[in-house]
Amino acid sequence: MNAKVLPKQDTKLVLLEAGMQAMLERGYTNTGIQEVLTSVGVPKGSFYHYFESKEDFALSIIQHFDQKHSANLARLLSDVTVSPLQRLHNYCEEKKQMIAAWKCCKGCLIGNLSQEMSDQSEILRMELAKVMAKWRESFAKCIAEGQQLGEIKPVPDANKLAALFLDAWEGAVMRAKMTKSVDPLDGFINLMFDHVLKT
Amino acid sequence: MNAKVLPKQDTKLVLLEAGMQAMLERGYTNTGIQEVLTSVGVPKGSFYHYFESKEDFALSIIQHFDQKHSANLARLLSDVTVSPLQRLHNYCEEKKQMIAAWKCCKGCLIGNLSQEMSDQSEILRMELAKVMAKWRESFAKCIAEGQQLGEIKPVPDANKLAALFLDAWEGAVMRAKMTKSVDPLDGFINLMFDHVLKT
Repeated sequence: MNAKVLPKQDTKLVLLEAGMQAMLERGYTNTGIQEVLTSVGVPKGSFYHYFESKEDFALSIIQHFDQKHSANLARLLSDVTVSPLQRLHNYCEEKKQMIAAWKCCKGCLIGNLSQEMSDQSEILRMELAKVMAKWRESFAKCIAEGQQLGEIKPVPDANKLAALFLDAWEGAVMRAKMTKSVDPLDGFINLMFDHVLKT
Repeated sequence: MNAKVLPKQDTKLVLLEAGMQAMLERGYTNTGIQEVLTSVGVPKGSFYHYFESKEDFALSIIQHFDQKHSANLARLLSDVTVSPLQRLHNYCEEKKQMIAAWKCCKGCLIGNLSQEMSDQSEILRMELAKVMAKWRESFAKCIAEGQQLGEIKPVPDANKLAALFLDAWEGAVMRAKMTKSVDPLDGFINLMFDHVLKT
C-alpha cells in the first residue's frame, strides 16, 4: 500500500484501523508506532500530520472504535423487529461469535485499555470512561423498554441493571480471554437472562 | 536496604513484594526489572539467582499475590461468627476500603495481568486462569453454605452464581479504576446482594 495514492482521510482511517488492531492485539505499551506505519506503508511524517503523539493516536483510536461499536449497538439495541430482551440477547450472541472467531484473543479494546492506561494517562482514562458511560446509557434505554413491556424485572431501575449487565459482561469477556474459552460468555448469557433480567 | 545483610528467603520476598507493587501500579510491560532492583537495593545477579526471566518473575509474583489473597479470602469467607451472605458482603466492603485508600488506582493484579498478558504468555495465562478458578471455588463454597441456610436463592447453582459474582466484581473494580470512583463498587454491592443473591 502506498500512502501517496490515498486521499488524506483514507490515510488517517488506514492508520486508525491498523492502530486499533495492534492495540487490541497487544495493548498500548506493546504497540510501536513505527510497526503500525510499516504495516500499512505510511511514512512517519504523515503520522505526525494527523496525530500529535502516541497518546493522541490512542485517543483517536478509542473514538474510532466507539464510532464503529456505537453504530453496531444502535443496530442491535434499536431493532424494533424483536423485543428489548431479545435485542440484548442478540448483542451478546453476536459478540460471542466474534470472540469465538478471534479464538478468544483480543477481548474488548475499551476494557483492555482501561486496565492498562487508567493510571497512566488522564486523557485516555477520561475518554474511556465517557465511552463506557455512553454505552451503558444505550443498554439502560433498552432495559427500560423491556421493563415497560413487563418482560424485564421492574426493580432495580434500568440504569443499575445496565451497570451490572456491562460490568459482568466485561468480566466474562476478560475471563474468556484468560481461559481461551467462550464458556464464561455462555455462563453470563444463561444467568443474566434467565435469573437476573427476565420476569 | 542492602541485600547482603538479608537472608536468602528475605531477598526473594523483598523482590516479589517490590515486583508485585510495580506490576500492580504499571502492568507487566511497563515494569522494568532494573527499576525494581534499584528500588530495593538488590543486585542483578541476585535476581537471576531466584528467577530465570521477567516472565518467570511475573509467574512467581502471581503465585505470591495468590498466597496473600487466598489467606485473606479464607479469613473472610470461613468466618463462622457471621452468616455466609455477610461474609461475602464483608469481602466486598474490605476490598472497597482498600481500593478507596488506593484512590481507585491499581485495581486487581489478576484482572490487570489477564487483560495485558493472556495473549502474550501462555505460562502466565494458565497461572492466572488457575488462580481465578481457585478463588471462584472459595466463593462457590460460601454461596452454597448460604443456599443451604436459605439466605441465598437456591437457583442457579453456587458455581454459576460465583462466576457471575466474580465476573461482575472484576468488571466493577475495572470501572472503579476507569472512573476513579468507588460508585461502581457500591452499585455492585447493592444490586448483587439485594437483587441477585438474597432470598
